[in-house]
Amino acid sequence: MKLVTYKINHTAARLGFVEENMIIDAEKLGQIKDSQLPDNMLDFIDLGIDGINHAINLINTATAEQLEECSIPLANATLLAPIPRPCKNIFGIGLNYTEHVAESARTLDTSKDLPQQPVIFSKPPSAVIGTEADIIHNQKITQQLDYEVELAVIIGKRGKNVPKENAMDYVYGYTVINDISARDCRRAGQWIVSKGQDTFAPMGPVLVTTHDIPDPHNLNLSLKVNGVEKQNSNTKFMLFNINDLIHDLSTVFTLDVGDIIATGTPAGVGAGRSPQEFMWPGDVVEATVEGIGTLRNTIVDSETLNN
Amino acid sequence: MKLVTYKINHTAARLGFVEENMIIDAEKLGQIKDSQLPDNMLDFIDLGIDGINHAINLINTATAEQLEECSIPLANATLLAPIPRPCKNIFGIGLNYTEHVAESARTLDTSKDLPQQPVIFSKPPSAVIGTEADIIHNQKITQQLDYEVELAVIIGKRGKNVPKENAMDYVYGYTVINDISARDCRRAGQWIVSKGQDTFAPMGPVLVTTHDIPDPHNLNLSLKVNGVEKQNSNTKFMLFNINDLIHDLSTVFTLDVGDIIATGTPAGVGAGRSPQEFMWPGDVVEATVEGIGTLRNTIVDSETLNN
Repeated sequence: MKLVTYKINHTAARLGFVEENMIIDAEKLGQIKDSQLPDNMLDFIDLGIDGINHAINLINTATAEQLEECSIPLANATLLAPIPRPCKNIFGIGLNYTEHVAESARTLDTSKDLPQQPVIFSKPPSAVIGTEADIIHNQKITQQLDYEVELAVIIGKRGKNVPKENAMDYVYGYTVINDISARDCRRAGQWIVSKGQDTFAPMGPVLVTTHDIPDPHNLNLSLKVNGVEKQNSNTKFMLFNINDLIHDLSTVFTLDVGDIIATGTPAGVGAGRSPQEFMWPGDVVEATVEGIGTLRNTIVDSETLNN
Repeated sequence: MKLVTYKINHTAARLGFVEENMIIDAEKLGQIKDSQLPDNMLDFIDLGIDGINHAINLINTATAEQLEECSIPLANATLLAPIPRPCKNIFGIGLNYTEHVAESARTLDTSKDLPQQPVIFSKPPSAVIGTEADIIHNQKITQQLDYEVELAVIIGKRGKNVPKENAMDYVYGYTVINDISARDCRRAGQWIVSKGQDTFAPMGPVLVTTHDIPDPHNLNLSLKVNGVEKQNSNTKFMLFNINDLIHDLSTVFTLDVGDIIATGTPAGVGAGRSPQEFMWPGDVVEATVEGIGTLRNTIVDSETLNN
């Protein structure tokens, strides 16, 4: 099942289900079928597998007329980040693909040794945007704006000290994240200014539930800038897989419904290229993960904005 | 005005005003006076100075009987963190007092040079607890549990690119934070595992609005472990003052109502002492900032808890 948080014109954000080229509005579908479905993503995730089964059942038993009544063309909607700003933890994992560890050691100040434990950082909720939204380039503070395509895991169940073998029970679904990084903005080695600026956490275009991604450890992921491929790898090359990451994070933090884990990026980032390549206003960056889709954003100059 | 988020037994968290040894419940005061006041801190902060003036007016015009009807003794309430978990950014500032820069360089892996820009990190909302709540010591992952008393600034107005000279307009009030740090949990230099574990962001006991703290840059702050003083300094020794920090943070992140800035700790932390001193189950840690009060927490062993 593909889930979106969407809006039309200036309405509030709403939950929808994607079927072919249409969005079925969740709350309206419930009303038409004399049943109930939430109008937002977090409340729906809270219902767990029961919510998904209920929604699928309502869709499957609806008449064509009923479906038409609660649907709009995907092309008419603005897709927001699947988990929009009202604020969950966004944990990032650094240095989680072998060749990216090597390229980072060459060009950034990270170690050339493979990490013995996941390298964890965070992005603030204020950084979240959806597909087609603009990434802000503030040239007063960075000349090294970089991209990182990653598989993002959405947590579906509150958990602490989750054993590796049960970790998948805590996964609700997946989306794509582009872990935007201003390489020259680290301070005393800390990454949050580099990775946490406004608009530096594009996510989407959709959230795909676990049912449609039976093996998240065998997904191609790739990234293009202005149509030219820069990254291309597969999630099977993660150093710490999703079970490892959920176990490890949950020994430290209580994971909560809607929390997001960005699982790390493969090689090919701009800082690791020779010569280095960074993004500038006008560039279009497309991050794709197999089975989820393409997250597309354009870089804009902060000086052209009114803030 | 002193504000608290409190509960009695198993009721939900509520907003209250502290007057001497009583808590006046905000929502109930509004009802008794045929007016309206929110039942929670964030909605009240959203009202800004108008909310404060309105509340003060209701208190001043209430009869003794009316006040008694909506008040409870402070001693009967459980004080929660002033901004409870429903989740705002908690930004921390590292290395913001000269002597702490020196002690950190001696014993941790930080630079001995004074930082040229604020060193920013974050603590996740899952780490927040209030006064008298327990700090969890997980001996499987740390043998270096440390304390850091800090003045915390509460943001009252959404802002981006705030000029230094206007920064105080964005401050709603202040509380005390103890920036608990497991010194041996940094990973690839990143501080979030060290500083972000569950219960590692005790805050409180109260939020004091700016009216009662005319000069936040001249407050004594101190910390005791088991009654013995370990830190004692004054906020006038901050390297980057509150104006600097709000300006700098807001060039990178959009600051939002309820966001919290922990402004850094002075010298005297356990890691910087010779020999080093860390906290262990049973220890009681008290962090005090002049004009706000004392935040008191006890260390407990994670093995004694049921999670």
